[in-house]
Amino acid sequence: MSPGGSISSPILPGIWRVTCGRPEAVSPVATRSYPPAETALAELPQVDTCPVPVSGQATPRGYVVSIPLGEHEQVYGLGLQLQSFAHRNTKKTLRVNADPRLPAGDSHAPVPFYVTTGGYGVLIDTARYATFYCGNDHRRTARAEHAVGGDGLPAAYHAATGESPSDVLVEIPHADGVDVYVFAGPSMRAAIQRSNLFAGGGALPPLWGLGVWYRTHKDFDQDDVWQMAETLRDRRIPCDVLGLEPGWQTHTYSCSYVWSKDFPDPKGMIEKLRAENFRLNLWEHAFVHPTSPLYERLTDHAGDFSVWSGLVPDFVSATAREEFADFHRREHVCLGVSGYKLDECDNSDFTGGWSFPELSTFPSGVDGEQMHCLFGRQYQDAITSAFDGEPTYGLVRSAHALAAPYPYVLYSDLYDHRDFVRGVVNSGFSGLLWTPELRHADSPEDLLRRLQTVVLSPLAHINAWYLRNPPWMQTDPDENNAGRFDPSWPELEARCRRLLEFRMQLLPYLQAAFVGYQRTGAPPFRALVVDWPDDPRTWMIDDQYLVGDALLVAPMVAGQRTREVYLPGGTWFDFWTGTPFGPGRHSIEPDVETIPLFVRAGTAVPLAEPSLHATSEWTIHVRSYGDDAPDTVTVYPERDGSVVETVLGRDDVASWSAVTVGSNGAPAGQPT
Amino acid sequence: MSPGGSISSPILPGIWRVTCGRPEAVSPVATRSYPPAETALAELPQVDTCPVPVSGQATPRGYVVSIPLGEHEQVYGLGLQLQSFAHRNTKKTLRVNADPRLPAGDSHAPVPFYVTTGGYGVLIDTARYATFYCGNDHRRTARAEHAVGGDGLPAAYHAATGESPSDVLVEIPHADGVDVYVFAGPSMRAAIQRSNLFAGGGALPPLWGLGVWYRTHKDFDQDDVWQMAETLRDRRIPCDVLGLEPGWQTHTYSCSYVWSKDFPDPKGMIEKLRAENFRLNLWEHAFVHPTSPLYERLTDHAGDFSVWSGLVPDFVSATAREEFADFHRREHVCLGVSGYKLDECDNSDFTGGWSFPELSTFPSGVDGEQMHCLFGRQYQDAITSAFDGEPTYGLVRSAHALAAPYPYVLYSDLYDHRDFVRGVVNSGFSGLLWTPELRHADSPEDLLRRLQTVVLSPLAHINAWYLRNPPWMQTDPDENNAGRFDPSWPELEARCRRLLEFRMQLLPYLQAAFVGYQRTGAPPFRALVVDWPDDPRTWMIDDQYLVGDALLVAPMVAGQRTREVYLPGGTWFDFWTGTPFGPGRHSIEPDVETIPLFVRAGTAVPLAEPSLHATSEWTIHVRSYGDDAPDTVTVYPERDGSVVETVLGRDDVASWSAVTVGSNGAPAGQPT
Repeated sequence: MSPGGSISSPILPGIWRVTCGRPEAVSPVATRSYPPAETALAELPQVDTCPVPVSGQATPRGYVVSIPLGEHEQVYGLGLQLQSFAHRNTKKTLRVNADPRLPAGDSHAPVPFYVTTGGYGVLIDTARYATFYCGNDHRRTARAEHAVGGDGLPAAYHAATGESPSDVLVEIPHADGVDVYVFAGPSMRAAIQRSNLFAGGGALPPLWGLGVWYRTHKDFDQDDVWQMAETLRDRRIPCDVLGLEPGWQTHTYSCSYVWSKDFPDPKGMIEKLRAENFRLNLWEHAFVHPTSPLYERLTDHAGDFSVWSGLVPDFVSATAREEFADFHRREHVCLGVSGYKLDECDNSDFTGGWSFPELSTFPSGVDGEQMHCLFGRQYQDAITSAFDGEPTYGLVRSAHALAAPYPYVLYSDLYDHRDFVRGVVNSGFSGLLWTPELRHADSPEDLLRRLQTVVLSPLAHINAWYLRNPPWMQTDPDENNAGRFDPSWPELEARCRRLLEFRMQLLPYLQAAFVGYQRTGAPPFRALVVDWPDDPRTWMIDDQYLVGDALLVAPMVAGQRTREVYLPGGTWFDFWTGTPFGPGRHSIEPDVETIPLFVRAGTAVPLAEPSLHATSEWTIHVRSYGDDAPDTVTVYPERDGSVVETVLGRDDVASWSAVTVGSNGAPAGQPT
Repeated sequence: MSPGGSISSPILPGIWRVTCGRPEAVSPVATRSYPPAETALAELPQVDTCPVPVSGQATPRGYVVSIPLGEHEQVYGLGLQLQSFAHRNTKKTLRVNADPRLPAGDSHAPVPFYVTTGGYGVLIDTARYATFYCGNDHRRTARAEHAVGGDGLPAAYHAATGESPSDVLVEIPHADGVDVYVFAGPSMRAAIQRSNLFAGGGALPPLWGLGVWYRTHKDFDQDDVWQMAETLRDRRIPCDVLGLEPGWQTHTYSCSYVWSKDFPDPKGMIEKLRAENFRLNLWEHAFVHPTSPLYERLTDHAGDFSVWSGLVPDFVSATAREEFADFHRREHVCLGVSGYKLDECDNSDFTGGWSFPELSTFPSGVDGEQMHCLFGRQYQDAITSAFDGEPTYGLVRSAHALAAPYPYVLYSDLYDHRDFVRGVVNSGFSGLLWTPELRHADSPEDLLRRLQTVVLSPLAHINAWYLRNPPWMQTDPDENNAGRFDPSWPELEARCRRLLEFRMQLLPYLQAAFVGYQRTGAPPFRALVVDWPDDPRTWMIDDQYLVGDALLVAPMVAGQRTREVYLPGGTWFDFWTGTPFGPGRHSIEPDVETIPLFVRAGTAVPLAEPSLHATSEWTIHVRSYGDDAPDTVTVYPERDGSVVETVLGRDDVASWSAVTVGSNGAPAGQPT
C-alpha cells in the first residue's frame, strides 16, 4: 500500500488527522454538532509524535486503510459489541443492525473507533459499513510465508495467534478516501479520554436521571400511570422517572407524536407527577405518520422511502432536525416532558423488514447506508436541542462515533444477561452508555441478579412495558398480567427495594464519575484493561467492570454459584464486608443478595442516605479504604440545573468518623 | 427507474436474459462449466412471453434492479436459508457466512435466485453480496402514501403486508450492471425445473452415495477405521461410505493433502474396504499448506492473502482448478477414493477469523467478495473433474447459482433440528442439496428424530467425527468417548438399524427421484408450495417436504408429541398403516419410532429388500396407493456406472401381488 496521507502536526493536542485519498463529504466528524473540548484536551499528557503510521489505497471496491499492530497488542472498541470483546484476529463488519446476534460486527451502535493496549486510539471517520480486520492481515506479500521460525512454524502462524506484528486493515465500501484520526495516550485510558474530549466531552445526566426508572405497561392510560406512581411511593420503591410506551400517541407505527385520548390532560398529569418528584419520559421513533402535524413540515426533508408509511426525516439536514426539535419543544417539552426513549432508529430492516433500505437517498445527499450509521446520533441531536440546554436524559437504540456528549443511553431487545454485562464493559471504549435493563425474569434469582447489574449501570431501567405489575410481584409475564402473584412477593419486593436503595446511596459517587466523564473524558463505566493495559490478565476480562475510579463490579448471573474475580494492581476491599483482598485471581461465592463489589485501596466513597427520588440535599456518609485514602471527597450538588463542585473534608461529614479512616478501611457494616 | 435492458426473444425455451447496464465480467453464468440441458428444456411447457419486466439503474453505490411483484405473490429461494422461508416483505443480504445464525440472508450457500407463486424464477447473475428487498419496496414516489384505501389505511400499509403490488428491489454493490435471467413456468415447479436445466440438470449420485454414510473419529488411524468398518458389518448396520476427518493428512490447517503416518497404506486400506463394499470419503479444505506438493504449482494461481499460512487457489482460473484436480486425481482418486468432504469454503471469516478477506484479489481478476460467492461451486468443479466422469458424491460447505449438476451436498456446523428440516425444504428452490446430518444427540428420542430426518434426505450422514463410538451406544459425546455406555444401547442400536434399513429400502425410489432431477430438473426434495403454489395454505409450510412425487414427510423433533400436518390436493395414505387421509389439516401423534410419512394417491412406490450396502440386484416390492395407481413402475439399476431405465410391470415383480393394487392401497404391513 502507498502512504495515504502525510502526518504533520497534530490538529489538537495529541490528535492527528491523516487524510487518505478523497474523503466523502458526509462523515461522523463532518456532521458533528459539539465542538472538541479543547481546554480539557490541553490538560492531558503531552504527546508530540503520532503513535502509528496510517496508509491507504483506493481499490475498485472502495478504500482500504492499513495501520500496523504490534506484537502482543490487543484491540478493543468498535462500538456496542454484545457478543465479542477483544478483537485481535477477528473481522468485524460494522453494520447497523437491531438484531445483533452474531459476533460479526453488527451492532445497534457500531463505532469505527478502536483503541489498543499500545496506548492509542484510531477513528476511521466514515459513515459506511466498514470492515475491520484486526490484526488478521495475512497478505502473502506482506510477510514471507516461507519464513519459518525456530519452532518450525511459518511466520503467518504467529501472526494468526497475535504473537507477531500484523496490521489492522479497514475496508470502506464505495468511498475514494477517508480521514483517519489518531488519538495518542500515552496510556490506553488517556487515548479514550482524548477521543471523548474530541467528541466534546462525555454526557453529564441530571441527577434525577441517575435515579431509578420505571417504564409502565404499553396499554396504560393516564390514570393507570398515576396509579403506578402512587403504588411505587406507597411501597417505598425509589423512582425518579416514569416512562410511557407507544400507547400515549394516536399513531405509533409510524408515529404521530400526538397525545391519544387515553391521555386527555398530559400537562396536568405531568404537573401532578412532578409534584411527587417524578419525571416523565416518552417513547417514540423517528418515522413520521401522515396524520402527524410534523408530516407536512418534513415532506421536503425526508428520504425517498417510507417506513410504515411514515417519512424518514433527513437528520443530516439541520432544517429537518430543527423542525423535529421545534415540534417536540412546543408539544411536549414545554409541558414538562423530561426526555425520550428513541426506538427503532437502528435498522431493524435486516431481520424485521422495518426500516429504510441502504439504497435510499436523502435531500442532504447521503444514502441509506450513511444515514443508518448517523441516524441514531443525529436523532439524539435533534431531540436534545428541543430542550434548549435544559437537562435531559433518555434512551436510544443507536449511536455512532462522537456520540459521547449526548445524554442518551443505549438499550436492546436482546436479553441475555451475560451479553448485557459485556455491553456495559464494551460501551466504555467508544464513548457510549448502555443499560442492561430489567424486563421480566426466569426466576427470583434471575430478577435479583439482573437488577444488581442494573443498579450498577448508567441508567437503572426497569422496563416493564409488557408487565401490568412490577416484576417482583410476578416474574413471569403471563402470570403477572393475569394478576396471579406468588404470596411471598412482598419479600422479593423488599429484596429489590434494598438494591434500588443502594442505587440511591450511590448517587453522589455515580454523579462524580459522570462529572469526570464530562470534564476529562474518562468513561464512568469501563473495562479493567482501560486502567491496566500492561497487565495481560485483564485483556480478556469482559465480565467485570469499573465504575468510576474506586469500584470494581463482578456481576453474577442466575445459576452461577461461584465465580472468579480478577483484581488488578494492589489491594482491594470487599465493599460489603470490608475484607481486604490482595491483587490476583480470587474465587468468590456471593449469596443471591450480594453484588460482588470491590473498592480500590486509597479511595473514599461518598454515599447518600437512600431516598425515594434524587435530591441534592444529601446526608453524605463517606467510606474510606486503605491507609492512603484521602481526607477529602468531592461531591456535586445541583443548583439551578448546574453542578456545584463541593469538597468535603473529614469534619464536614457527620458520619465520616463512623467509618475507619486511614486504617484497612473496614466499614461499619452493610448499608441498609 | 429506467428500463435496464430490452427483452426480446428468449435465449433458450422459456428463458430470457435482460442485460442491465454493463454487467461485470465474472458472474455465476460467466464462470459455468456445465452447458444448459437444451433438449430437456425444449420438453418443458412452451411459454412465449417473458413473465415479468425487469428494469435497472446505476447508482453511486452499485446497481439496482427492480422487478414487480403482484398482489398476494409469495417469494422463495435465495439459497440455503436455514432461519427463514417465505421471503415476502423481508430483506436478505446474501453474504457467504459459515455461521448463518440470523435470518438476514447470510448463508453457507446464498443463491441470487428467487421463485414466486406467480410461476416464474429470477436469477440475478452476480457474484456479489446482493441485497434483496422482497416486496418491501416503500418508495415514496412509487406509490402515493396519501392514497388511503376503503379501510382508512394508507396504501403503504397494504404493501407492507403483501396485500398489494410492490417490487423486488435488488441492490448489487460495486457493479455497473448485471444480467438478469427470467425463467418462465407457467407453474412454479416448471420455473424451478427450467432454472435447474439451465444449470445443466440436477446431480445424479451413484447408488452407493444414496446409502448410509458413517464418518469416523478425527483421531482414528488406519486400523481404527478398519475396526469401525468391521463393527458396522458385525452389528448389521447398513453403510456404504466411510469418511475420514482431518487426521489422514500431515497438515490440516492449512492442508497438505498428503497421507499422514497414521495411514501408512492407504491403497491397501481402500482396497480392503472396497472388498467389503465400503467407499472412502476424504475430508479436506482448499487452503494449501506450504509443505504440500500442490503449493508450488499454485503459487502463481492464488489470492494475495493466505489462510492459516496456506494458499487460496484461484478457482476461477481453469489452470488452478486443473492443477488442483490433477493432484487429487493422481494422489487419491487413483487409489480408489470415492469423493470428498469440502470444508471451510464458506467464509468462516465473519465469526471465526478463518478465511480470506473480501478485499483480496486473485490473478483471474476477481476480488474476495466474488471469490467467496463462487468459491464453493468452483471447488466442487475442480474436485469433480478429478474423477474424469467416474461417479462421485460428496459433501461441501458452500455453493451458489448453477450448482445443481455438482454431486455435492451441503452441510453445516449449526445443529438445530428444526432449522435442519428447513434446510431440506429450502434447498430445493435453488438447485441445492442439503444433509441434516446426525452428530450427537441430547437423548435417545433426539437421536431417533434426527435420524428419521437424515434417512429422508439427499445424503444419510452419520457424522461421528468427534465420537469414538456410534452415537446409539451413547448420545453424550464425553461419555461416548470415555466408553461409558448405557446398558440398553443394543436396543437403541436396533431402533436406529431399522431406520437405516428403511433408507436402504427406499433406494430405488430415491434414485428414481434423482434421475428425474437430472433429466427434468425437478428437485427430489422440495417444499409443498412448489407443487401446490395455488393453495395459499402451503405458502408458509417449512416443516414438511416432498420426496420425489409420491412421498410427503412431516418430521418430528425431540420433545414434540403431536404435530399438525397439511396434506394438499387429494387423498394421501399413511405410509406405515395405509390409512387414507383426506386433503387438509390433520393432527397426528406418531410414536418415537415413526416418521410421519404420507403417500400420494395414484402412485406406486418401489422398495428394495434392505441390504447392508447398495446393490443393483434388488428384490423390488411395490406398494400401490389409490384406485388410479399405475400398473408399472420405473427403476434404474446401475450398469457400468450408468443407470438403465427399467420399467417393471405388475408381473415382473415377485411381491407386487402382495400389495393391493387398484384398491385404496393398504399395504400388507410395516416393512421390517
